[in-house]
Amino acid sequence: MSKKRVVIAGMGFGGLRAAKTLSESDVELIMVDRNNYHLFQPLLYQVATAGLEQEAIAYPLRGLTRRWRNASFMLAEISGIDLDAKIVLTDGGNVPYDYLIVAAGSRTNFFGMESVAAHAFDLKRLDQAEDLRNHILLMFEQASRESDTKIKSALLTFVIVGGGPTGVEFSGALRELIVYVLSKDFPTISANETRIILVEAADSLLTAMPADLREYAHQKLNSMGVEVLLENRVVGATPESVVLYGGTVITSHTLFWSAGVAAAELAGFLKGVEFGAAGRVVVQSDLSIKDHPEVFIVGDMACCLEKGVPLPMMAPVASQQGDYVARSILAREEGRSLPPFHYFDKGAMATIGKSSAVAAAAGFKFSGYIAWLAWLLLHLYYLIGFRNRLVVMMNWTYAYLFQERQVRLITAKKRRAVTIL
Amino acid sequence: MSKKRVVIAGMGFGGLRAAKTLSESDVELIMVDRNNYHLFQPLLYQVATAGLEQEAIAYPLRGLTRRWRNASFMLAEISGIDLDAKIVLTDGGNVPYDYLIVAAGSRTNFFGMESVAAHAFDLKRLDQAEDLRNHILLMFEQASRESDTKIKSALLTFVIVGGGPTGVEFSGALRELIVYVLSKDFPTISANETRIILVEAADSLLTAMPADLREYAHQKLNSMGVEVLLENRVVGATPESVVLYGGTVITSHTLFWSAGVAAAELAGFLKGVEFGAAGRVVVQSDLSIKDHPEVFIVGDMACCLEKGVPLPMMAPVASQQGDYVARSILAREEGRSLPPFHYFDKGAMATIGKSSAVAAAAGFKFSGYIAWLAWLLLHLYYLIGFRNRLVVMMNWTYAYLFQERQVRLITAKKRRAVTIL
Repeated sequence: MSKKRVVIAGMGFGGLRAAKTLSESDVELIMVDRNNYHLFQPLLYQVATAGLEQEAIAYPLRGLTRRWRNASFMLAEISGIDLDAKIVLTDGGNVPYDYLIVAAGSRTNFFGMESVAAHAFDLKRLDQAEDLRNHILLMFEQASRESDTKIKSALLTFVIVGGGPTGVEFSGALRELIVYVLSKDFPTISANETRIILVEAADSLLTAMPADLREYAHQKLNSMGVEVLLENRVVGATPESVVLYGGTVITSHTLFWSAGVAAAELAGFLKGVEFGAAGRVVVQSDLSIKDHPEVFIVGDMACCLEKGVPLPMMAPVASQQGDYVARSILAREEGRSLPPFHYFDKGAMATIGKSSAVAAAAGFKFSGYIAWLAWLLLHLYYLIGFRNRLVVMMNWTYAYLFQERQVRLITAKKRRAVTIL
Repeated sequence: MSKKRVVIAGMGFGGLRAAKTLSESDVELIMVDRNNYHLFQPLLYQVATAGLEQEAIAYPLRGLTRRWRNASFMLAEISGIDLDAKIVLTDGGNVPYDYLIVAAGSRTNFFGMESVAAHAFDLKRLDQAEDLRNHILLMFEQASRESDTKIKSALLTFVIVGGGPTGVEFSGALRELIVYVLSKDFPTISANETRIILVEAADSLLTAMPADLREYAHQKLNSMGVEVLLENRVVGATPESVVLYGGTVITSHTLFWSAGVAAAELAGFLKGVEFGAAGRVVVQSDLSIKDHPEVFIVGDMACCLEKGVPLPMMAPVASQQGDYVARSILAREEGRSLPPFHYFDKGAMATIGKSSAVAAAAGFKFSGYIAWLAWLLLHLYYLIGFRNRLVVMMNWTYAYLFQERQVRLITAKKRRAVTIL
């Protein structure tokens, strides 16, 4: 019997974990991604706030294929999936499979608001983090030579939408960038002239957290100088303004959107499947799709019900699902089958600022320094690559000791034509 | 008497050194640059060959203005210089000066060959280094799934023009990237299938070096597998070919040009000055320009004769000139004047590969391991910023110990339209 071929579409947390589990087996493993690296998305906001260089949170996937003898990597954009012929179509050629693991993750969901989609920044890709960093620093450069106070304050007003971990962590990191670094860099700008407005539709931040931790986060952000607008929504935007529900207009050139995600475009290539909320693909209890037991969906793309509600779109879910489908493929090859997938909730955490975070795990609740330390260590642990851990740890230590953000570079590409002599 | 204002246009090695010297004085110092960082250009080729992250060789200029009480920074594109009114015109407003130090450096010189200018890569800016890295890695990704051997070998052929330090160092670094890293990353590509062709018009490499060091570099590159073509020239290019003088056509998608530099565009803004070779501005013995003793040109832009020949366009010349004009401004303010500028030649060095470099200094000549160690230490020493030194040292140590290049990421920006649900 020839080796079975497992194709993994998308090398985020779900795909990576599935690959890792399969790497010790004797199936043929083909990893497909549009990038040649695994991106550690939870730290993208630190790239956007000049805390980390982008290379530190990306790990070259071919570094894995070296160690995994049964694995190969293919840099390709997937253009279709033929479920009946069992073929993945890509711009690099067609890839037949015996088993397919679809783990393409999610994209930002603007809920149909074109004006917001057109003008807001979001954080899914490395280049978006770099663009946002360049933009923030540019706003300060422009403000530093602006005499008109109204224009200046517009340049220094930053609106963040979404009170989940990303919105909270970004708000805190941006505030610290301004207070500890930029206010020293720009003698003509005081931190009091800047505004950070965090807008959340629900009646509290970090809704997944216990009440007292939500309260702690809210208080902490307030004390840091972040304005928190609860039970409010952004409904529109222009290059120089943000419109709130009810009509209030905030003059600002920076709108950061972290208020919604939806399944990646790839979901649309799966013919005949059932879709849940946010375009997620409804899966069976073993994470395969109906009528195609050889095709699995994991992570943000999968609409997997647990106690009647879909599992959240977050890394731990994706990792556990990736591991589960890998193990269940191996089990099937041995004629066994696994019990339905069950998500083991390890809890949630979010860092707010220096020495300050919230964490809820296994019934325990932490806040402040201990939670912050736990956050740092866990993120270093889950980061891929020895060198990346070193670089990140170095940057964090450096920032902690010297209140510095060395990566405050405006690297916007200048496309100047070469002058010919 | 009010403080005299010194404006520095361009914060490369010349401008930076001038600023440093003036920072201890009581003149008003205004540093103008189109980027918000000082770029350590000598290591750009290591960014292009995936050895360093781009952030590691850039230092934020506002980090300097914090320490220098008399200095301020202006991010601006200079659009003109009014020598009579003593005003620098920029897109960020006009800047009057009492003294002006023009240190805008150089740009790549394609000697009028449009086709080469259109298709060749060159290394002057950070984004160019990232583009070149992305391109090289992409060539390997494409070659890895190419069955046609002719197309494959074209993808794996790299032509480098210019046998100076940049061309030699880039050739060696690229060859090591291929042999130590990419040949392991790509099981379907052997190093023997790749070609690196270094083209130099003169009859030897590193013409500024003593004969035996030139010979050592040549032999070393040969033994590493780099093909050296002497007394030859590239006269044209297309996206898939490079044309040599005499008509030979090399099928290749990668042409790296390091065979010529010319004074930066800014030189054109100086009305009534005399121009030397490569558009450099002819300066007096004190580096000022004729009829304008308050305007100085330093570095690559200055055509400064020493023993009848113009000084080379390299960092040490720029630094010494920057320091000289700064001191001579201070001297003038005290009613003194300095003797004419004299360049103290500290020698030259170039690294070829791991544990291998050439260095000629003060009549001494080194090659091999000692020269390589000296090269590493000197570059670390001249690199700006404690953190950058740490990151670079870490990357070098990592590469030395593990034969690795962790930064082999394809970060080409994907401008995908956001899908609206």
